This record gives sequence, structure tokens and C-alpha cells, in this order.
Amino acid sequence: MPPAIILIRPQMGENIGAVARAMKNFSLSELRIVAPRDGWPNPKAVTMATGAEDIIDGAKIYSSFAEAVKDIKIIYATTARGRDINKPVIPPQQAAQEIQEYYSNGVECAFIFGPERTGIENEEITICDKIITIPTGEKASLNLAQSMVIIGYEWIKNQNNKVAYSDIAVPAPKEDMFGLFTQLEDYLDKSRYFSTAHKKPLMWQNIRNMLLRGSWSSQEIRTLRGMLRNLWEHRD
Amino acid sequence: MPPAIILIRPQMGENIGAVARAMKNFSLSELRIVAPRDGWPNPKAVTMATGAEDIIDGAKIYSSFAEAVKDIKIIYATTARGRDINKPVIPPQQAAQEIQEYYSNGVECAFIFGPERTGIENEEITICDKIITIPTGEKASLNLAQSMVIIGYEWIKNQNNKVAYSDIAVPAPKEDMFGLFTQLEDYLDKSRYFSTAHKKPLMWQNIRNMLLRGSWSSQEIRTLRGMLRNLWEHRD
Repeated sequence: MPPAIILIRPQMGENIGAVARAMKNFSLSELRIVAPRDGWPNPKAVTMATGAEDIIDGAKIYSSFAEAVKDIKIIYATTARGRDINKPVIPPQQAAQEIQEYYSNGVECAFIFGPERTGIENEEITICDKIITIPTGEKASLNLAQSMVIIGYEWIKNQNNKVAYSDIAVPAPKEDMFGLFTQLEDYLDKSRYFSTAHKKPLMWQNIRNMLLRGSWSSQEIRTLRGMLRNLWEHRD
Repeated sequence: MPPAIILIRPQMGENIGAVARAMKNFSLSELRIVAPRDGWPNPKAVTMATGAEDIIDGAKIYSSFAEAVKDIKIIYATTARGRDINKPVIPPQQAAQEIQEYYSNGVECAFIFGPERTGIENEEITICDKIITIPTGEKASLNLAQSMVIIGYEWIKNQNNKVAYSDIAVPAPKEDMFGLFTQLEDYLDKSRYFSTAHKKPLMWQNIRNMLLRGSWSSQEIRTLRGMLRNLWEHRD
């Protein structure tokens, strides 16, 4: 199973719904809730969970933290505040990598998030294996769903990345650039662009360097050449 | 300057406030807003921006995207949808690493976010240098502030992590590119390059995309403009 998300005594139904939505974005689906302040089901959670109603409907409710984690093997606690407890404190990406490894080996893991105001109690931290601290600036006030977004994002980064990250079009063979250079040099010579002959070599070198930086495709070079020809031949 | 955050035609004041809060978490402070739907100032933005009121107070408002990016040298657009446009599409961490490198060298960068429903228009994407796509599961609906959280988080991960800059020239502010575009479009129009009026928008968009890829310095753009002017005016 992908990691479970466990909310400890969440206060606002809206936040529970927003967490569900955040989970959905990153293909996480198992939500467990320990002692939600306003009871369960919570209509505000449903309203806020647009598109992730299935996660809310499938959420499991527990009366204690210990109950909620009985079957979990490794627990990562997300906290903003520093803690005096002797636990490894790691960044989100490390947690995600570790969980990915556990996941590949069928080891059940969970991310836990404490109540909005107070965070997780030390007693509960004691049960957790590692603490995740999200890097922030000095003035940090990430809410529950935002923390969930970061954890989910780091989790999915380690999955088979289905996003098609492209680089740009395949650059043309240099031959095409040479064709462009020949044409342009001809126009520049004819239009007396290089005012003095001895300055030409360096000027022309700079121009070619600059044009090369575009890493243009063959098609793009054809476009550029057509454009230049048009300017040259059809002036007014 | 750390990267600016530019919101294009944001609809809900609440979302603007939530973006400001998200920014604050990651020590980003420069917010620019293009044509906010409900005008400015927006009381809902202030209410939502608890703890980040200074960012809302200091936000700069622009009537057009072009105005908002005049002094920016490298623009990263965040989009969820795939685009047919020929731009590099990269993940957030790569964008953050690149921006860190630019930042260390005083090159002004910006992250832009489109309107909630519709996203950024292709016309606007054309002005951008690279596209960031956040990896998500199949059902993705990250809101504005959540996308901001991920970008901010990746940004701060790279702080205290200064990279030595390589030897490419500092890219020009976009204003310089706009100048080049205006000049070139004028020549192309006068020389009847665009054979049919309805084909012009796409053709012209492709040409601008292609020229932007050079990441030219101000000096290089001046050279290119001088070269074009010379071709145009001194043709035999």
C-alpha cells in the first residue's frame, strides 16, 4: 500500500477536506483520522474535498493514535517545531525516498500530522520512527493541507514520473546553421554592415556565437532564413 | 533579488492572500499582480494573508503581463496542462536550481501563475522562457496557493547552496526583447512576410518563441537590432 495519511485530532472540517484534495493530487488515498474534534462524518470536510469525496468517504476513524497505527510499521511525523526528543529529523525528500523503498518491499508506512494549533504531543512522537521537518523561512505557518501538498509532492516525485518533461526541439545539424550564416553574411556584406574590414572577423564571430545559442531546429532555421530573405527582397 | 511571483489576472482575493502566505513561508516577498479581477486593494486578500500583510501591502499592480515583466530576465511559467508550444518543460526542482544559479549572479527571475480557471494564455507563454510542470497523480487540481507552496519549497531547499555560475551572458530584461519584437514585426509586416492575416498569430508566436530561446544579453539584442536595421535600410 502507498503510505497512509493519519490526522491526529484535526480541528476544522475544512482542513480535513483540503488534506483529502491534496492527497488526491498525488495519488494517495488512505486517510485515517484520530478523534476529529467536530465528530464524523463532517459536512464541511465533504464540501472542501471537491473531487476527493471518495477519500473522505473511505476515511477510517479511530479514538486513539495507538489504535490508528496498530498495523503500521514505520511512522513519519511531520512537525514544524523543533523537538527535544531523540529521534532522527529528516527533510521531506529523504522521507519520501525511504518510504519509496519500504513501499517497494511491502512495508506499511504512514505520515502523521498533528492538530492545527498544538501539533503532535510528545507522547505521540515517542511512537514515531522519524521526524520530518519541512524547510521554511523564518516566518513559517504552513497549514495542514500545505504540509500535505509538500509531502505528497515528494512522494510522487519518486513514483514513475508520468509527466513528459521535454527538452526542446532537436537542434539542427550544424550544416543548417552554416547555411544561415552564409546567407546572413551575404546580406550583411551587401548592406555594408561591417563598417571596417578589420573589425569584421570579431563582429561576425560574436554574431554567430549568439545565433548558435538558440539551439534551433532545422525547421526553425528554415523559418529564420525565409524571414531574412523576405526582409531583403521585399523591402517596402 | 529572490524571484518575483507574478499572478496573471487572479480571480479570487482569497487566493491572492493565500499565495502571499505561502510566499512568506519560504522567504519570498516580491508579489506582482496583473489585472486582478476584483480590483485592488482587495480586502479578502488582506484577510487571508495573515502574517503576510506586508507582502500584500507591497504588491505591485500592472495592467498587462508585458508591463509586469519588463525588468525580468528569465521567466518560468507554471502550468498544469500540457502545451503544444515549443518550450522546455521542466520539473520544479530543476527550475529552483536554475533560479538559484541566476539569483547568485544577480539575474532577475520570476515565477508566473495564470488565472485559476483558465491558466496562462498561449500568447503569454510565448514570452516565458521555460515551463514548469508539477508532477501529480491522474486527478490533479492544485490550487494557486498549493502550487506556490511547492515552488517556494523547492526554492528554499536550494538556499545555502550557492552554485558557481557558468559563462553565459546575463540575459536581457524582457523589455529589450519586446523592442526587438516590435522592430522585427514592423519589418515583416511591411515586407508582407505573413501571406495571410489569419496565419500571422501562430507564425509570429513561433518566431518569438524561437528568438527567446537565445537568452540574449542586452548587448546582443542591440547587435541583432542593428543588423536587422542595416539589412532593412541599406539594401543595395
